[in-house]
Amino acid sequence: MAPDLQDYHEHVHQLISAALAAVDPAIAVKKILQKGQHRLRIGATTRDLAEGDIYLIAVGKAAIPMGMTAAEILGESLVEGVLITKDEGSESVPVLSYPTVINNLFVYPASHPVTDERGIHATARAIQLARRAKAGDVVICLISGGASSLFSHPLIPLSGWQQLTNQLLASGCTINELNTVRKQLDEVKGGGLLSLAAPATCISLILSDVVGNPLDVIGSGPTIPNPDDPATALSVMRRYNMKDKLAPELWIKVLAKLEGNESFELGDCPPPCNYIIGDVHLAAEAARKAATDLGFHSTLLTSHLEGEAREVGRVVAALAKDMQPGSCLILGGETTVTLKGDGLGGRNQELALSAALAIDGLENLVLASFATDGDDGPTDAAGAIVTGLTIAHAKSQGLDPVVYLDSNDSYSFFNLIGGLIITGQTGTNVNDLIFLLKYQ
Amino acid sequence: MAPDLQDYHEHVHQLISAALAAVDPAIAVKKILQKGQHRLRIGATTRDLAEGDIYLIAVGKAAIPMGMTAAEILGESLVEGVLITKDEGSESVPVLSYPTVINNLFVYPASHPVTDERGIHATARAIQLARRAKAGDVVICLISGGASSLFSHPLIPLSGWQQLTNQLLASGCTINELNTVRKQLDEVKGGGLLSLAAPATCISLILSDVVGNPLDVIGSGPTIPNPDDPATALSVMRRYNMKDKLAPELWIKVLAKLEGNESFELGDCPPPCNYIIGDVHLAAEAARKAATDLGFHSTLLTSHLEGEAREVGRVVAALAKDMQPGSCLILGGETTVTLKGDGLGGRNQELALSAALAIDGLENLVLASFATDGDDGPTDAAGAIVTGLTIAHAKSQGLDPVVYLDSNDSYSFFNLIGGLIITGQTGTNVNDLIFLLKYQ
Repeated sequence: MAPDLQDYHEHVHQLISAALAAVDPAIAVKKILQKGQHRLRIGATTRDLAEGDIYLIAVGKAAIPMGMTAAEILGESLVEGVLITKDEGSESVPVLSYPTVINNLFVYPASHPVTDERGIHATARAIQLARRAKAGDVVICLISGGASSLFSHPLIPLSGWQQLTNQLLASGCTINELNTVRKQLDEVKGGGLLSLAAPATCISLILSDVVGNPLDVIGSGPTIPNPDDPATALSVMRRYNMKDKLAPELWIKVLAKLEGNESFELGDCPPPCNYIIGDVHLAAEAARKAATDLGFHSTLLTSHLEGEAREVGRVVAALAKDMQPGSCLILGGETTVTLKGDGLGGRNQELALSAALAIDGLENLVLASFATDGDDGPTDAAGAIVTGLTIAHAKSQGLDPVVYLDSNDSYSFFNLIGGLIITGQTGTNVNDLIFLLKYQ
Repeated sequence: MAPDLQDYHEHVHQLISAALAAVDPAIAVKKILQKGQHRLRIGATTRDLAEGDIYLIAVGKAAIPMGMTAAEILGESLVEGVLITKDEGSESVPVLSYPTVINNLFVYPASHPVTDERGIHATARAIQLARRAKAGDVVICLISGGASSLFSHPLIPLSGWQQLTNQLLASGCTINELNTVRKQLDEVKGGGLLSLAAPATCISLILSDVVGNPLDVIGSGPTIPNPDDPATALSVMRRYNMKDKLAPELWIKVLAKLEGNESFELGDCPPPCNYIIGDVHLAAEAARKAATDLGFHSTLLTSHLEGEAREVGRVVAALAKDMQPGSCLILGGETTVTLKGDGLGGRNQELALSAALAIDGLENLVLASFATDGDDGPTDAAGAIVTGLTIAHAKSQGLDPVVYLDSNDSYSFFNLIGGLIITGQTGTNVNDLIFLLKYQ
C-alpha cells in the first residue's frame, strides 16, 4: 500500500529510529570486540589483542556506552580505563560528579564544543594512563564525536584555546579545517596519543562524526600521525581572517607556534590500528531500508553532504521539486553555518527553514533534517520537519520566515509554528540525516 | 560497451550538443507555429491566431532566430516586427548596425545584462508597434533570456536604472528578486506590454531562462499581470541593503516610487496567452538520453537547481562521491555568485572549481558545468570541466586553487590549467546544466 501523507510524522519517526539503531555505540562495540577471547572481529577475519595488559581510553559523546560495553566484554583483562564525555548539564540527564569511579573506570564529564578546565584535567589523567602502558600492552581507544574538544591538552593557555575554538567555530570553516589548526597546537591530537602510549600499541574503534571518515580528522586523530604541516594550519587561520578575530597577543603566540619549529615530532611508534565501527552511511542506509519497508521507492543519494546550511537547503529543495510521487530520498553529511544574525538555531533547523522557503506551495512534500546526536546548535532540538505548507502557515501567524532565516533564528521560528524534532541526547553521533518524502 | 574515461571530453561534448539541439529556438518556434494556417499547435490541440493583423515583438538573446523563423512561417500575414537582441560586440559575430531592417522586421542590438540607451530606444519602437494593434489583431511576443534588460522602459532615468541593476546583480539576489524590483519600475514589465497592446491580444512563446518557469519572472513578464505588490519589491531592496549601495538621491527616488501610489494599474486587457516552448528540463532530458545512449546508467536529478555557486558545487561533489561506476547524473538550473573578490569568472566556472576542491583525488570522476547560452559571467567561456585530478594538476603548476576561488577568479584558474568549456554564442538560453560522469 502506498504511504499516506497524514502519517508523515510517524514515517519520519520510524526512519529516525531505524537510523539511530544502526549506529548505537554499544552495539557497534559489541560487534567488533569478541567476549572472552580478546579478539577483534573485523569483517570475516579476526585480530588478537594483547598478551600484556589492556588499558582503555574512551573519549567523545558516546564514551560512556562505548567504554562501559568494552569494559564489560574485556572483564578482568582490563587494568584501568579513563572515559571523558560531554557534561550535558540538563535536568533530564543526571549531572555526573567529578570523576565518577565505576570499578576500574574513571568517568570525567567535560565541556563541548569548547574545552574547559575539566577536559584538560581529564586528558592529563588519560595521558598518565597511556604512559603506564608497556611494550606488549594495548591501549584501546574508543573515539566518538566531540572528542576533539573533550580530549585536549593544548600547547597554549586555556583562555586562548577557548577563544581560538570559538572564533573558528563561528567562522564557517569546516571541521577538517578546524581540526587542522587544533592538531598543531595540542599534545594528544594528530597522533599525540599514539606517541604517548608507545611502545604499547593503540587500537582505535571509531564512531565517525566527520563526513567521509578521514581518520586524521575524527577526534583530531589522536592515534593517526598528522599528515598536515603547520603551514596548512596557518593558511586556514589566514583564510578565516583569525588575525583580526583573535586578541593580538594570542595571534602572536599562535603564529609563533605555527611558524616556528615547535611542531612536535612523533617518535618511533607501533603502527596505528584504526577501525570505523559506525558512520553516517550506515545510519542513512538503515533509514533507506526503513523507507522501502514503508512502501517508498527510496534512494540514498549521498553520505558526503556538506556546505553552508541555507545553500544546501536550496539544493535539497531543488531535488525535492523533481521527485516522483511515492519516492524517498536520503542524504547524509553535515553542513555548516556562517553566523550573521544573533538568533537561536542550528544547522539542521536552518537548512530546513531555507528549504521550506524554496518548496513553498508544493503539495505532498515533507523534508526532515536532524543531527543524529540530538544536538542541533545550542538548542534543545535535533532538527526540524517542514512541508510545502510550512511557509504559508507561518505567514498566516504573522511571521516573516525570511527575517528568521536572515538572523540565524530558525529555532525561534519553529518553536513558534511547530516542526521541531526533539529527540534528547541519542547517545550516538554520526553527523546529520535529511529525509525527503514525496507522497502520492 | 562501458564508456571509457579517456573519451570524457568527447562524451561531454556529445551531451552538450544533444542538450542544445533540444532547445534550439528556431526549431522550438517551428514546432508550435503552423505554417500557412495561422495556428498554434499546443500538445495535441491547436489554437487559431487572428482574423486581423499580426504584429511581432521578439526580445531576448534568441530574438533573431525566433523572430526570423516566425516571420518566415507567418509570411504576408505579418504586418511588422521589432526584434531586440543582445549586441555581442565580439569579432566572431558581425556587429549589427542600428537598426538592421530585413523586409518588415526591424532588428535592434542592445546591451545586456544592464540596459543601455539603445535598449530603451528599441523598446520605445516596440511600444509604438503594440499601440498600433487594434481589437481582433494579435501581437506575437517571442521572449527569451535577457529580455528583462533588452526590453526595458524604466520609470527612472537610465543612469539610476543601470546603477540599480548593477548593484542588485552583484548582491547575490535571485533573478526572481531582481525582476520583482524591475517590474515595479518599468513600463513594459509585469504585464505592461499586455496593457499597451490592448485591446489586441498578446500571445507569448517563451524560451525559459528562469528556473521553474515562473511566467511572471521570465523577461520580467511583459504579458503577465504582475502578482507582486510594491511592498514585495521594497522588502527585496531592504534585504540586499540597497539603501547603502545606491546614491542617496536614487534611493529616495526609488523609495518614492515603491512607497507611493505610483505603481501603474493594468486596464482591461484580453486574457494573456503564454506558452513555454523550451526550458532547461527539455535540455537536461536530452542530455540524459544522450548519456544513456553512450552506455551510462543516467539519472536526471533536478531541473530546479539554485543557490550560491560555490556551495552548490560542494553539494554536487557530495553527490559525485557516492556515484556508482558507469553512472551519470544530470542537474539543471542556475546558481548565483555573491561577489567578494575582483577576479574574473562565472557561476559555472566557480561551481566547477569549488566542486574540484571537494572531489580532489577521486578517480574516474568528471564534472562539467556550463551555461546553455555560452555566456558564463563576463568571460568568453560557457563553463568548465573538472576531474579528481584537477586540483593536483593545478598545485603541480604552483597554483593555489583556494586563492582563486576566494577571489572569484575561476576563469583565470581554468585559463591557466585548462578545462574551460568554450562554445561561443549558442543562440539559445535555458539556464545551466551540470553533468557528472563516473567511469568504471
